[in-house]
Amino acid sequence: MTQPDRTPRKDKLLFTPGPLTTSAGVKQAMLRDVGSRDDEFVAVIKDIRHRLVRLANVDETEEGGGYTAVLMQGSGTFGIESVISSTVAPEGKLLVIVNGAYGQRMARIAATLGIRTVKLCCPEDEAPDVELVEQTLAGDPDITDVAVVHCETTSGILNPIRQIGWRAKQHGCNTIVDAMSSFGGVPIDARQCSIDYLVSSSNKCVESVPGFSFVIARKTALEKCQLLSRSLSLDLYAQWREFESSGQFRFTPPTHALLAFHRALLELEEEGGVPGRAERYKRSHRALLDGMRALGFLEYLPPDHQSTIITSFHYPDHPNFDFASFYRRLSERGFVIYPGKVSRAECFRIGTIGRIDEQDVRDLVAAIGLTLIDMGATPQEQGQYS
Amino acid sequence: MTQPDRTPRKDKLLFTPGPLTTSAGVKQAMLRDVGSRDDEFVAVIKDIRHRLVRLANVDETEEGGGYTAVLMQGSGTFGIESVISSTVAPEGKLLVIVNGAYGQRMARIAATLGIRTVKLCCPEDEAPDVELVEQTLAGDPDITDVAVVHCETTSGILNPIRQIGWRAKQHGCNTIVDAMSSFGGVPIDARQCSIDYLVSSSNKCVESVPGFSFVIARKTALEKCQLLSRSLSLDLYAQWREFESSGQFRFTPPTHALLAFHRALLELEEEGGVPGRAERYKRSHRALLDGMRALGFLEYLPPDHQSTIITSFHYPDHPNFDFASFYRRLSERGFVIYPGKVSRAECFRIGTIGRIDEQDVRDLVAAIGLTLIDMGATPQEQGQYS
Repeated sequence: MTQPDRTPRKDKLLFTPGPLTTSAGVKQAMLRDVGSRDDEFVAVIKDIRHRLVRLANVDETEEGGGYTAVLMQGSGTFGIESVISSTVAPEGKLLVIVNGAYGQRMARIAATLGIRTVKLCCPEDEAPDVELVEQTLAGDPDITDVAVVHCETTSGILNPIRQIGWRAKQHGCNTIVDAMSSFGGVPIDARQCSIDYLVSSSNKCVESVPGFSFVIARKTALEKCQLLSRSLSLDLYAQWREFESSGQFRFTPPTHALLAFHRALLELEEEGGVPGRAERYKRSHRALLDGMRALGFLEYLPPDHQSTIITSFHYPDHPNFDFASFYRRLSERGFVIYPGKVSRAECFRIGTIGRIDEQDVRDLVAAIGLTLIDMGATPQEQGQYS
Repeated sequence: MTQPDRTPRKDKLLFTPGPLTTSAGVKQAMLRDVGSRDDEFVAVIKDIRHRLVRLANVDETEEGGGYTAVLMQGSGTFGIESVISSTVAPEGKLLVIVNGAYGQRMARIAATLGIRTVKLCCPEDEAPDVELVEQTLAGDPDITDVAVVHCETTSGILNPIRQIGWRAKQHGCNTIVDAMSSFGGVPIDARQCSIDYLVSSSNKCVESVPGFSFVIARKTALEKCQLLSRSLSLDLYAQWREFESSGQFRFTPPTHALLAFHRALLELEEEGGVPGRAERYKRSHRALLDGMRALGFLEYLPPDHQSTIITSFHYPDHPNFDFASFYRRLSERGFVIYPGKVSRAECFRIGTIGRIDEQDVRDLVAAIGLTLIDMGATPQEQGQYS
């Protein structure tokens, strides 16, 4: 039984934190149906897990840090919940460092699971104060686990995970890093950052389609987590053991998304691995800053904390600017941007990850310029924005 | 940045309970990247939810039963856990009717979540005794919720959900039906079966790719579930409210799998809806029984309980038969079957769902016949199998 061919229409470019624009090759890898217990698919899972560990600059051996990779069905939040649910002991206490919505989310997950939680809240436009982290850990010896976001997608800030991980280790705590938006696009050495659990997802800087998350875990930490999980589906330990014994998922995997991800990992390698990809993101981000500044926009973050992943811009201080209209007009021109999420400023966000390059960014900036003219909201009509 | 075209190689046919063989159109629907908050995608979600409710022969209005559909990231097990976690009250007690591995799994989920649970265990080759269900409910007024599997994929048995749902309703209990393997391929009237929560997943009889599950819920039941969930990710109530308010998922959805599913729903409609698809499954199942019986195989279940979804066959009673070798040889011929799962008999399983038809089944049976000859395990070589 065959179906007629369908030529896909041209999609809008996605300047978002994901789902992203992916390559044609990644999408075409999904044009197959493979059995979830078939040898070929089991080999794909094995290769994916091995490549993920290596992307964190560690390996499975003791000399290489003794890490492993565990894939988990569902979005990134499912992966984060899986780690918190499966690794914090019943008598444990979790310190969550918060400078944005994703830090807040980790604290909400822990609270929902009935885990004792302390939040260390920092301003959204500042990196967390490492000395304050040290004081918090020194002042509360009950803390067993520390969770922090690497790139807070709320603002686009890059947090100092290495310094925080080191403090956590000094106090005998496990470190959980939400590297959702950064992994694959910003070099991370899991061991140098004292990371026990790093979480990311398929539709971020590896540039594949959404459908699952993954955890790069230090095996000597994960080994202690048998029966700790508060959930059957999200049991990270049980998932790991099944991968190790049968090579399979415990429950139905998103087979097509995994074939796409495998292809995406090969394309990442072709691009020069994480360093190569990071260079492209830097160029795209540079093109974005140059173009947006020329249009009169101001960034929300100071430059020294700004990642190359996603950038928050203040709304222009112009009476004719309306974000809903701005967003819709850009979308009609074929460019999807993202609303803001910081609490105390009116911002929108532009992502520079996914299968887009400098020229795509310049095209976006040109479209933004034209849209401002359409709206009668250019700075020329009112001097400078702010 | 474009990639070279890749012609997909010919895939093996999947005679499994899923992931299944899907149509070319379903897979090609994934050749697009859409933003998860884009209007077009929000419209797709809305249409999917509406169509799912109608497939259960009910609708959103009070006269139509007052049902709604909630999509949940992850496999079917995630959907089941989402319902148990989000709808059984802290002081509640769940009766799980068990005649196979998927009934057992529901009980394990409840136990992991710390929910008081009673199991009513019945033999795997028999339908649960409805009178025993009645007695259990009458004898334990603490029971608030009843969970049962419709088609137990363990054996392929079809359980009497209508009679069980009616008993549960008489005792004021909510009814949770795991219709994972049957929904879309066996007509179900959610209201006539007194179902409060029906769970299935994307890669079963709707014949799409894996990546999410869905729950068809009676709104007056779900309305009482605010803050009941033991998990943030799997909070069915919060997920529903977000669909109703913004039309979006709370956390990153598997956009490509949803586009595929939407296409699969249109193809289901083209086939004459659930009745049309059920007819194809009946024909395929009939061809399977005829062919396998002619080869000397015996079914595990008595015919009156057997579904058209998946069929368990006893291993042939022949010294040369070895399942691992049988499976591998069939796979090399391009046919993937499934190992058995019943506890007390040596069986294998053959699914007849997915984009396969009678002729595909006849091809499979021919391949099985040739494989038996290759293995020197035909009945001719030892009279009758059993």
